[in-house]
Amino acid sequence: MYGMLRYFMGFADEHLEPACVYGGKRFRSALALLVGDMYGMLDRVIPAALSIELFHNFTLIHDDIVDNDTMRRGRPTVWKLWGIPHAINSGDAQLVLAYRALERLYEDDPMRAARVQAFLSACYLEVAEGQYLDFILTDMPLSDARVTRESYFEMIRKKTSVLVGAATKVAGLMAECPDAECAALYEYGVHLGMAVQLHDDLMSIWGDPQRTGKVAFGDLRERKKTLPIIFGLAQGGEVREMLLSRYVSDASMTDAEAAELAAALEAAGARKDLETEIARHQDAMRVAVGRLSLSASAQETLAALHIECMPR
Amino acid sequence: MYGMLRYFMGFADEHLEPACVYGGKRFRSALALLVGDMYGMLDRVIPAALSIELFHNFTLIHDDIVDNDTMRRGRPTVWKLWGIPHAINSGDAQLVLAYRALERLYEDDPMRAARVQAFLSACYLEVAEGQYLDFILTDMPLSDARVTRESYFEMIRKKTSVLVGAATKVAGLMAECPDAECAALYEYGVHLGMAVQLHDDLMSIWGDPQRTGKVAFGDLRERKKTLPIIFGLAQGGEVREMLLSRYVSDASMTDAEAAELAAALEAAGARKDLETEIARHQDAMRVAVGRLSLSASAQETLAALHIECMPR
Repeated sequence: MYGMLRYFMGFADEHLEPACVYGGKRFRSALALLVGDMYGMLDRVIPAALSIELFHNFTLIHDDIVDNDTMRRGRPTVWKLWGIPHAINSGDAQLVLAYRALERLYEDDPMRAARVQAFLSACYLEVAEGQYLDFILTDMPLSDARVTRESYFEMIRKKTSVLVGAATKVAGLMAECPDAECAALYEYGVHLGMAVQLHDDLMSIWGDPQRTGKVAFGDLRERKKTLPIIFGLAQGGEVREMLLSRYVSDASMTDAEAAELAAALEAAGARKDLETEIARHQDAMRVAVGRLSLSASAQETLAALHIECMPR
Repeated sequence: MYGMLRYFMGFADEHLEPACVYGGKRFRSALALLVGDMYGMLDRVIPAALSIELFHNFTLIHDDIVDNDTMRRGRPTVWKLWGIPHAINSGDAQLVLAYRALERLYEDDPMRAARVQAFLSACYLEVAEGQYLDFILTDMPLSDARVTRESYFEMIRKKTSVLVGAATKVAGLMAECPDAECAALYEYGVHLGMAVQLHDDLMSIWGDPQRTGKVAFGDLRERKKTLPIIFGLAQGGEVREMLLSRYVSDASMTDAEAAELAAALEAAGARKDLETEIARHQDAMRVAVGRLSLSASAQETLAALHIECMPR
C-alpha cells in the first residue's frame, strides 16, 4: 500500500523499487515554502506544505479513477497498474497521512496547530465540494440553463484554487502574520489558482501541443464545459449550433472538426474573453500582493508568479 | 454530496429528503459512549465517538464499491444509486469530516486533543492496511503458502478489531485514565472486535439465515478465506480436496454444494476450532476487563458484551 503511494509521488518504480522520477511539479508545497521563506519561516511551514502536497496527490489518485485516466506524468496511473480497489484504498491512506503530516505542529504550539488544521480541513472539504460540482456540471447537457460562467467559476475555485490559497495562507498562519495579512495571502493564492486553471483551459484549446505536452484540443475532445465553451454558447447563432451538435455526439471528434470548433470559438470572441478573465485574476493577484508587508522584490516575485508557471 | 452522506447514515431517503431509517448499529460509537459513561465522562467522549463512527461509515461507502455490493442495511448502496465517482468523492469528504469532528476537542485541552487525534490517525491507517491485506489474501489462490491462520488474524485485527479498540481506548484517553488503564481498554476492545468478527464468520457458514438476516453460506459462496476454510485446508485429505475444487471454480455454488462443504468443514473440526478461538478472545476480554478500575457491575457488563452483540 505504501509502495503504491511512493510510486505515485515519484519515489518508486512500477516494481516498487526505490527510484527518483518526476512526481509532479510540487507547485502547492513549493509555493507554501516560498511564501514561508519570504517571512523567514521556511522550516515552520514544512509540515503544512507536506500535508497540502499529500492531500493534492491523494485527490489525483482518486481523480484518475473517476476520469478513467490511464496515464499521468508519463507513467501508468495507480488504478491502471494495481486496480481500482487498491487505488481507492491507497488514496484513502494518503488522506490520513495528510493529517499525520500535521502532528509535529502540535509539539510547538498546539493552539496554533489546531487553527491551522481547522483551516486546512475546511479547504480539503471545499476541494471535495468542487469535485462534486465538476461531476454535476459534466453530467448536465450543454443546453442546461445551469451551465453558466458563475457555475464554472465556482467549480474551479473550489476544485483547484482553494488549495492554492491554502498553500499561501498557511505560510502566513505559521509565520504568525496578522489576520489581514493572512487574508491577503489567501486572496492572492486563490486568484493565482484561478489564473493558472484558466490558462490551462486556454492552452487546452489554443496552445501548441509541442509546447504544452498535452493532447491537441484535449478539452474539446473530452467535451469539457470550460469557460470558452460557455461563452460561445451564450453568443447564440452559428457557434452555439456548432457546439450543441459537436457536444452531444459520443463519436470522437476529428482533428479537423476540433480545429474548426476552436476557430469558431475564437472568431466569436471566446479566446479574448478568456484572456480578459486571466488578466483580471492577475490584476487581483497584484492588488492582494500590494497589501502584504513583504519587500518590494518579494512582492514582485509573487505578482509575476503565474507567468513563470506557464508551460513553455 | 452531503445529501448522499446523510442518506448513508440513515438521515435521508433516496431523494435526499429527511428521513430516519436504519443506518447501522452504531456499535463503535455506542461502545465509546458506554465506556466513557462508566468513567463519568460521557459528554467528553462524544467528539471522538463521532469521529470513529464517521470514519467507520466512510470505509463502508468505499468497501461497497470495491466489493461490488449493491445493498447495505436493506437499502441500495451509494455507488449503486449515484455511481462510483460520487461514492468515492462523498466517502473522501466523510473522512475529512471524521477529522473535523475532533476540532471541538482542541477548545478544552489542545495537547490531549493532539494525542487523541494521533492515536486515532494511527488506528485509521491500520484499517487501510487491513483493507490492503484483505485484497492480497482475496487475490491469492487458496493453495498459496501465505494463506495462513496468522495472515487471516492479522488482516481482521487491522481491518476490524483495531477500530473497536480505538473506541474503547479513546474513552479512557478522554477520561484521563492512566496509561495502564488505557492499554487494558484497548486490549479489551481489540479482543471484542476479534470475537465479533469470528462470530460473524461462524454465522456466515453455520448460522440460521432466518436469524442472521444474511445469505445462507454467504462466505462460502463468495469464496472468502475465513478461519474455518484455512483450518480445513490445513487438515489435508478429502476436505482440502473439496475446498480446492470448490474455491477455484468461478461458477456459483448451489445450496446443496455449499451445505455439503459446511458439513465437511464441521466434520473436520473447523467449527470447533472457530468456537475455541472465539472463547479465547472472550477470555482475553475478561482478563483485560479485570485490570480496569471500574466497579464489578461495570466490569460484568463489559465482559458480557459480545454475547449481547450476537445476532438473534
